[in-house]
Amino acid sequence: MSAILSEKAKKIGVLGASGYTGAELLRLLIRHPGVEIVLLTADRRAGQAMADVFPQFTPFRLPPLTALDTADWAALGLDLAFCALPHGTTQKVVGELLVRAPETKVVDLSADFRLADPAAYGRWYGHAHAAPDLQKEAVYGLTEIHRDKIAAARLVANPGCYTSCAELALIPLLRAKAIDPDEIVIDAKSGVTGAGRGLREDLLFAEVSEGFHAYGVGHHRHMAELDQEFSLAAGREVVVSFTPHLVPMNRGILSTIYIRAVQGAAPQDLHALLSKFYANEPFVHVLSFGKLPQTHYVRGSNLTFIGVAADRRRGRAIIGSALDNLTKGASGQAVQNMNLMLGLPETMGLDQVALFP
Amino acid sequence: MSAILSEKAKKIGVLGASGYTGAELLRLLIRHPGVEIVLLTADRRAGQAMADVFPQFTPFRLPPLTALDTADWAALGLDLAFCALPHGTTQKVVGELLVRAPETKVVDLSADFRLADPAAYGRWYGHAHAAPDLQKEAVYGLTEIHRDKIAAARLVANPGCYTSCAELALIPLLRAKAIDPDEIVIDAKSGVTGAGRGLREDLLFAEVSEGFHAYGVGHHRHMAELDQEFSLAAGREVVVSFTPHLVPMNRGILSTIYIRAVQGAAPQDLHALLSKFYANEPFVHVLSFGKLPQTHYVRGSNLTFIGVAADRRRGRAIIGSALDNLTKGASGQAVQNMNLMLGLPETMGLDQVALFP
Amino acid sequence: MSAILSEKAKKIGVLGASGYTGAELLRLLIRHPGVEIVLLTADRRAGQAMADVFPQFTPFRLPPLTALDTADWAALGLDLAFCALPHGTTQKVVGELLVRAPETKVVDLSADFRLADPAAYGRWYGHAHAAPDLQKEAVYGLTEIHRDKIAAARLVANPGCYTSCAELALIPLLRAKAIDPDEIVIDAKSGVTGAGRGLREDLLFAEVSEGFHAYGVGHHRHMAELDQEFSLAAGREVVVSFTPHLVPMNRGILSTIYIRAVQGAAPQDLHALLSKFYANEPFVHVLSFGKLPQTHYVRGSNLTFIGVAADRRRGRAIIGSALDNLTKGASGQAVQNMNLMLGLPETMGLDQVALFP
Amino acid sequence: MSAILSEKAKKIGVLGASGYTGAELLRLLIRHPGVEIVLLTADRRAGQAMADVFPQFTPFRLPPLTALDTADWAALGLDLAFCALPHGTTQKVVGELLVRAPETKVVDLSADFRLADPAAYGRWYGHAHAAPDLQKEAVYGLTEIHRDKIAAARLVANPGCYTSCAELALIPLLRAKAIDPDEIVIDAKSGVTGAGRGLREDLLFAEVSEGFHAYGVGHHRHMAELDQEFSLAAGREVVVSFTPHLVPMNRGILSTIYIRAVQGAAPQDLHALLSKFYANEPFVHVLSFGKLPQTHYVRGSNLTFIGVAADRRRGRAIIGSALDNLTKGASGQAVQNMNLMLGLPETMGLDQVALFP
Repeated sequence: MSAILSEKAKKIGVLGASGYTGAELLRLLIRHPGVEIVLLTADRRAGQAMADVFPQFTPFRLPPLTALDTADWAALGLDLAFCALPHGTTQKVVGELLVRAPETKVVDLSADFRLADPAAYGRWYGHAHAAPDLQKEAVYGLTEIHRDKIAAARLVANPGCYTSCAELALIPLLRAKAIDPDEIVIDAKSGVTGAGRGLREDLLFAEVSEGFHAYGVGHHRHMAELDQEFSLAAGREVVVSFTPHLVPMNRGILSTIYIRAVQGAAPQDLHALLSKFYANEPFVHVLSFGKLPQTHYVRGSNLTFIGVAADRRRGRAIIGSALDNLTKGASGQAVQNMNLMLGLPETMGLDQVALFP
Repeated sequence: MSAILSEKAKKIGVLGASGYTGAELLRLLIRHPGVEIVLLTADRRAGQAMADVFPQFTPFRLPPLTALDTADWAALGLDLAFCALPHGTTQKVVGELLVRAPETKVVDLSADFRLADPAAYGRWYGHAHAAPDLQKEAVYGLTEIHRDKIAAARLVANPGCYTSCAELALIPLLRAKAIDPDEIVIDAKSGVTGAGRGLREDLLFAEVSEGFHAYGVGHHRHMAELDQEFSLAAGREVVVSFTPHLVPMNRGILSTIYIRAVQGAAPQDLHALLSKFYANEPFVHVLSFGKLPQTHYVRGSNLTFIGVAADRRRGRAIIGSALDNLTKGASGQAVQNMNLMLGLPETMGLDQVALFP
Repeated sequence: MSAILSEKAKKIGVLGASGYTGAELLRLLIRHPGVEIVLLTADRRAGQAMADVFPQFTPFRLPPLTALDTADWAALGLDLAFCALPHGTTQKVVGELLVRAPETKVVDLSADFRLADPAAYGRWYGHAHAAPDLQKEAVYGLTEIHRDKIAAARLVANPGCYTSCAELALIPLLRAKAIDPDEIVIDAKSGVTGAGRGLREDLLFAEVSEGFHAYGVGHHRHMAELDQEFSLAAGREVVVSFTPHLVPMNRGILSTIYIRAVQGAAPQDLHALLSKFYANEPFVHVLSFGKLPQTHYVRGSNLTFIGVAADRRRGRAIIGSALDNLTKGASGQAVQNMNLMLGLPETMGLDQVALFP
Repeated sequence: MSAILSEKAKKIGVLGASGYTGAELLRLLIRHPGVEIVLLTADRRAGQAMADVFPQFTPFRLPPLTALDTADWAALGLDLAFCALPHGTTQKVVGELLVRAPETKVVDLSADFRLADPAAYGRWYGHAHAAPDLQKEAVYGLTEIHRDKIAAARLVANPGCYTSCAELALIPLLRAKAIDPDEIVIDAKSGVTGAGRGLREDLLFAEVSEGFHAYGVGHHRHMAELDQEFSLAAGREVVVSFTPHLVPMNRGILSTIYIRAVQGAAPQDLHALLSKFYANEPFVHVLSFGKLPQTHYVRGSNLTFIGVAADRRRGRAIIGSALDNLTKGASGQAVQNMNLMLGLPETMGLDQVALFP
């Protein structure tokens, strides 16, 4: 942790620190000049050091991993807690935390609070939400789109990695009614860390390396998020075609998006619209017209690169959107939201340059 | 080479044996029971052994690599020559070969004879064709689609890897007028060997590994082939949207194809149509409805796996098509065509089981 | 399976077909002209088709996966069974099988019968052997070294992948007393499939990709096999230094071996000795002096490539030995042993050319 | 660049910014709070922006790439120049630069000034050194070993990546006369970026992926550096056995080192000695006894992890040493040296946490 830590450093907890989003939070927070990590939980690894779970943290002084149910929220007095817990668990944990420590703010990286509509939640997850009041309170944490609400929120639902990637590219176009909402195809490709650190045969090295395939065709839960945010932006119901694929790499998402411009608009107009929308955003960079991004350019950084090119079919365009699923797609955006919620400069601690090669 | 070689073994030459398609031809031909390799050319490596260029061939007895212009076509009396030469060169070489040895048949793996229309050729390649008569004579070698013409041909233009993958999935549907030809999006992903063995910065390990990106957006030459074959199948002009991407792996292409069924047709109908079309094909396997293929399942084999699933948008479907770009996408299909052209069983020497893991 | 199958095809079972060595056995046996696969067991996947577990086998007609304890060994009348079961289980299964069907032969791919000495077995595995009579009967299946015994055996213990790689390189030198047995360092590197298909966090793609490390330092069980075979070859006790490493790739082992020649011998003498020893072996290829092998050259083939170079330190040499851990390191050597045991030509069904690139 | 830049920021140039070590220097320097990048040269890319060569730098304001021979060294008044130029070129460039701008300091990342002995230089490089006076003046830049000399130097020769990795592990042991200098075997494994961005067939993705091999056996130029530094540390001539291997990954070196302790010393003693030597070093971390490092733990950071374990052969030990070849093995150590040479805190700008997964 930085030497410039003062009395005023914000006190931060990471719940579920032994997974990949937990490790990525630590990578960013350890060097963040405005915070102090005071709590790390990891139920299966409680009692161990973070360095036992992720040896790259060996050189850093960090609190030990503890069990979640031993945390005394009131006594801890956290300024903010990141929840990187499995789906379902989170609703109960956050509920209890906010009762015991109402001053603590929460950025939740799970899917538990992303859907605002209780009916949609029930439809996609197969059960009623355990904390409907908090579901109502939660703010959807796509920073560039909901910045003001996030700054004022107590509970932020950090978006999914696929959804952040596609929404940053499409929401400005849908808001401007520049594209046909019924003609959106999102062909998305992700590195494997998006699936987490759980033990699954299909995530073994030998099952991923030297291969490529689609998955979750027709029923991936990120579809619910996309529908929600796109419908909100378009002012009408939107159902998109979304097909995720697994790339034999660790980090990165590239979404190739096929769209139809509304009558009279050219691909160049869509590019101009996006360029203007993101002109002053520190973490979204729109490439010059005709250039599409590579995931290499954003690995380990909090940036999203967006490109627009003409389709061969008149009136249609192709958008490429690339981000690091663990950074802007998860923990980086979570830190960005934390900065807003705690009144820190939005870019603080997020100036990592992409690691390439 | 097989011990069962007899006087009747066909005499085969491989022109351009030092590239990846050349190596793949040798991998297949060495174990092919009906042929004898009598000529290997590789201009830059002339005088060396094949084992110097690809040490995996060290255990096999093979002719030395020679310079192309030292070949005496008449004296060699080849039954068939595979051309795995760079684009442009091929037109001249094949022209001369067929003048000197009119009995020799040719399977050309370059793009030189794939476009039947001289105007289309000029538009995509920027110059007039050097052998317009042969261009007219050449048969497009997508075996399952043009089998009879291939069997009777002297010169076969082996299709491109991307095009084989997409055409096998779509031509039966276009012929049956089951889908809208104006609503085809082909999002294709390939391993790096599709780009050959040439020295390019963007093909270095460090530029490819741990990254993913689209390329050739709007202007990839395989588009010309797709347009030609799809227009032929549909009986009208077709212009498709086609976006290739580079996957950090060596072999394999997966095409994710978004289509709209004609009025009244369901995705299941498209699946039934493809299943029936390929029911008796040894090298094309249609998965059960709703399953999409992985490139793993075809690596090193001559198979194509095709799957059909419903899109979330009513009346639309998603097709996945997977093949090994070096085998069914290049050298395997070339051997399949050779078998037909020489009167050998079509599957001879092509019974490799995919290598996975 | 081959069309030339006749009444005389040998009846083969694969016990434990759902792992990687099981899949590799099928890849080889499906195209083997002398055998018929009549039994596939996989307890956790019983009732499924092999194509459900490994979809690359979809095009092939294979028996369904069954539970091991439903097998009626006498009625099946197998000519040979391959055991690809976990360690420990195997001793009991093989014991029962050979009681019920004494005419059936067995090639065991587990570690259960590799150690001939009951005391060594107990020391390395922490318990007494459950079938000590069979342990005594079993023949160590390093084909090139114990060919005659294997041909006459009923039960063959197929060697480990690391051990095959190092033993093929060193046993001829130890037998000839050409090197100092106390000065052997084996630095071995393997692809991940050597660890099998079990669910382990350290085998997840994200834990292996873009990284490299040693493991099992000082206590890997392959050490016991190495000690046994090297002591046998040297005619005295040998304890080697052996350090395995994990390479982010699927297949292949490369062992870099540091040795000291006995007084007066030069590295070139060691090379000459190995070249002569393997001059007529179809599956072991010794490169010219000074060249070391790559795993690429043997992927998917049953070959071992061995190279010898001079160390900078006088009187010392460096040996490189490369094989595919699933083929010559496991299932390919198992088929080679099967051929010997069943009186078939040793190379039958094993003429795969390496898949590179 | 950091917002805290003041009038006192040091003026820095990077000569040869278009290669991998150049990009890595920029990744580190952009966020370094004490410097300002005022010059970037890249002869083949002169006139372009750094973002054209490495698009990950698009969001940052950087000087344009210029041709080396247009630099006016006196006018630029650089505080320090990093030379990331090809071998041979460097001698002339540095010579001229230091004549024109004697106040400028230089950290050279090439091999040109690493060998102190003109005879050794001539023997390994085949020609006389072009700047023998500077060769004499240059200080070998292994920071933890030669810190004081580096702090006082005008010209520092940054060590090679392989050599840094092995020297940090062995020099303390050789200085303490704790190991036998005639019994050192260094089996080193590196990711591909160590070979740079030049166009070579053996560095293409398809030639590296899914394979593993040794190279430069017996004649790698890093041997000269190892001999020099080990002889210096041991106070007698040392010739080591060193074999580099290529790992299919981008970044990271792991050296597995086999050593013999001097009479009476145990592996634990060697571990204690290294632990004590590096107890207060910010960038070298010695693991607890018996644990060996992974390259994952250091990727993108300036750290070296060292582990010591017992060999099975009594009196011998195995050391693992891991670093990121582009960071501590090149550009990170160069920045560390820069900090010392310019009177900045040694760790400034080097607090990157490793990127894993």
